[in-house]
Amino acid sequence: MTITHDLIREHRKENGSKIVLLVGDGLGGLPLAPGGKTELETAKTPNLDALTKRATLGLSIPVLPGIAPGSGPGHLGLFGYDPLEYKIGRGVLEALGIDFALGPNDVAIRGNYCTLDAAGNISDRRAGRIASEIGAKLCAKLDQIKIPGVEVFVRPVKEYRLVIVFRGEGLGGNVADTDPQATGVPPLAAEARSDCSKKTAEIANEFLRQAREILKDDAPANFLTLRGIDKLPAIPTFQEVYGLRAGAIAVYPMYRGLARLVSMNVLDAGQTLDDQMTRLKAEWDNFDFFFIHFKYTDSTGEDGNFDAKVKRTEELDSCIPKILELKPEVLIVTGDHSTPAKMKSHSWHPVPTLLAADTCRFDGSTEFGESACLRGGLGQFEAKYLMMLAMAHAGRLDKYGA
Amino acid sequence: MTITHDLIREHRKENGSKIVLLVGDGLGGLPLAPGGKTELETAKTPNLDALTKRATLGLSIPVLPGIAPGSGPGHLGLFGYDPLEYKIGRGVLEALGIDFALGPNDVAIRGNYCTLDAAGNISDRRAGRIASEIGAKLCAKLDQIKIPGVEVFVRPVKEYRLVIVFRGEGLGGNVADTDPQATGVPPLAAEARSDCSKKTAEIANEFLRQAREILKDDAPANFLTLRGIDKLPAIPTFQEVYGLRAGAIAVYPMYRGLARLVSMNVLDAGQTLDDQMTRLKAEWDNFDFFFIHFKYTDSTGEDGNFDAKVKRTEELDSCIPKILELKPEVLIVTGDHSTPAKMKSHSWHPVPTLLAADTCRFDGSTEFGESACLRGGLGQFEAKYLMMLAMAHAGRLDKYGA
Repeated sequence: MTITHDLIREHRKENGSKIVLLVGDGLGGLPLAPGGKTELETAKTPNLDALTKRATLGLSIPVLPGIAPGSGPGHLGLFGYDPLEYKIGRGVLEALGIDFALGPNDVAIRGNYCTLDAAGNISDRRAGRIASEIGAKLCAKLDQIKIPGVEVFVRPVKEYRLVIVFRGEGLGGNVADTDPQATGVPPLAAEARSDCSKKTAEIANEFLRQAREILKDDAPANFLTLRGIDKLPAIPTFQEVYGLRAGAIAVYPMYRGLARLVSMNVLDAGQTLDDQMTRLKAEWDNFDFFFIHFKYTDSTGEDGNFDAKVKRTEELDSCIPKILELKPEVLIVTGDHSTPAKMKSHSWHPVPTLLAADTCRFDGSTEFGESACLRGGLGQFEAKYLMMLAMAHAGRLDKYGA
Repeated sequence: MTITHDLIREHRKENGSKIVLLVGDGLGGLPLAPGGKTELETAKTPNLDALTKRATLGLSIPVLPGIAPGSGPGHLGLFGYDPLEYKIGRGVLEALGIDFALGPNDVAIRGNYCTLDAAGNISDRRAGRIASEIGAKLCAKLDQIKIPGVEVFVRPVKEYRLVIVFRGEGLGGNVADTDPQATGVPPLAAEARSDCSKKTAEIANEFLRQAREILKDDAPANFLTLRGIDKLPAIPTFQEVYGLRAGAIAVYPMYRGLARLVSMNVLDAGQTLDDQMTRLKAEWDNFDFFFIHFKYTDSTGEDGNFDAKVKRTEELDSCIPKILELKPEVLIVTGDHSTPAKMKSHSWHPVPTLLAADTCRFDGSTEFGESACLRGGLGQFEAKYLMMLAMAHAGRLDKYGA
């Protein structure tokens, strides 16, 4: 049990204050050359810069020094859950990413369509990267599979990727992948890695038996492999830990799923940041905490497009006045990790973070960027402590000890 | 088991990159008076200063704030082993320090020659600090001792100090010192502190019985006491944790021994930093990771000779171009602890650290010194995380979680 959660449960209080956590996904960056500026430092961010004068800045370490997190651990950290304690399996994340409402009796699996040759060996682990429409049609066929004692759900993700969910009592989530990670060999049978997952392995093998029959004429997608078989982690709810009614406003399914993982209320976010702001205003009285997710600072970074990431950062900046109009007691702007365009990938670099509240000790910052954050009053801190700071600045934590 | 090691084992990948860890022993220092400069800041270090522009600086905390480490924990931290988890006994360190190749069945003991009076009480705990030649001759005599079931090795260290090793099956390392830490009292018998060390205690007492007979006419060194009785710690190898083929280039035996403790390959280092650079170049293709140790920044600090430490720091700086010629993906320059000339001893002060790589987020530094490192992008960090940063910057770590 995370010690920070116990501290919060024992010391939290209700005071009607509001906290907004605005996450620019992959917000942190790198300069393209020594002496240069990062994406955030290059972007014109007049609203964030103005906000620094009544905020404290710092750099958030998502997991540990040197560890580049995926979206799951990155967000768990921001939500105040130790990402080394709560682990999210690949199948679970994939299901969250298509807005599938996973429950506690569900085993989620990431599936890959593959091609089997005449001898039954895998000749293509991605089934020639079939079009998404074809993948969707095959999923509709597989979704008809019946297995006694469990419900079976098969949903398309994209191209050759799909999600399978088995729902039933007593299903463990500890089953090895059936993907042999090689071609020229047959797919593996599902094998339980613990006694309580034997039933799951049997169901998976029955599913594969039926699927092989159903798909036999659908080459190149004439079979599939199963990966990342797992259940939802046992995780305390956001409301139980913080006593906050939390609303999540995220355009992308993955982030709605991550919010749902800790039982936040997922709100209709529309398609744009403007839509998200409209929803925020409409829901303002209904929640104490808002998680707002902005994807495009990450996707442009992943594309290696420095200039596009700069533009998207400016877009993020433009929503700040609309949030401030609502007068949240605490506004945090940060990222779940860095995604430097220079690296075209998530990275381990600490993430620029701004916390604005009436109780801030100011650090002399005048602009929001990695260099200013390095000199900021929050210092470098593990992301899992951010929510404690939010609760404190919101006046929602009593003192510890007499 | 250190969590960082598990993270690295699960996420590391091979990419042919090279990491160089250059350790200036005791590199950190203090100004002689308030407002002054440290040894490193006084030294002319044009190569390190130039390197800061494409590096990130920081301050490494060897163990915990306020803890001044010995060479063992100092280096274990740099190698990424938690020095509070892996403890090295004094006897083991002494054996490593004379290049004795300790094995897993060995119990290593630090011995001190002492003087017994006619009543059998200790009158001098250091046997009048006998000359090293005399100590060596006495060791040669003691090395003849035979004890059934074990091999006995006795080796001189310096003056009154020696190393005794018992080699055999089933020898525990948990035996109390026989040095009573006082004069006017007899030496203690060896006493086991756990059941599995009873055999070791019996052997030690038989060794002492024979030694008393052999040394009886050798006053002032007519007996010896045993201290720091211990075995090698069970420690995962550097290659098993990091997947790196590691070469150690250290002039002093102690540091070769510390490298050997984690199963690095100990390479012939010659006698000078130039010799070490020659060896580095010759071995460049044979290893992924190089640990290069430079002793004299520590020994001059221990001597309290500020100016000599400055000169030795300049010598260290002069080898940087030779390392850069080889184009390592990651070059780290740091120390295992601080040794301020002002204190004439190891200290707990955080250690200036420079990490140069293409993936650095630059921090505006223009020179390598304690003040610049305090403002550096690595912040203040526990030394045990340095190798995770090295692995990340070398592109050798996959992301954590999906």
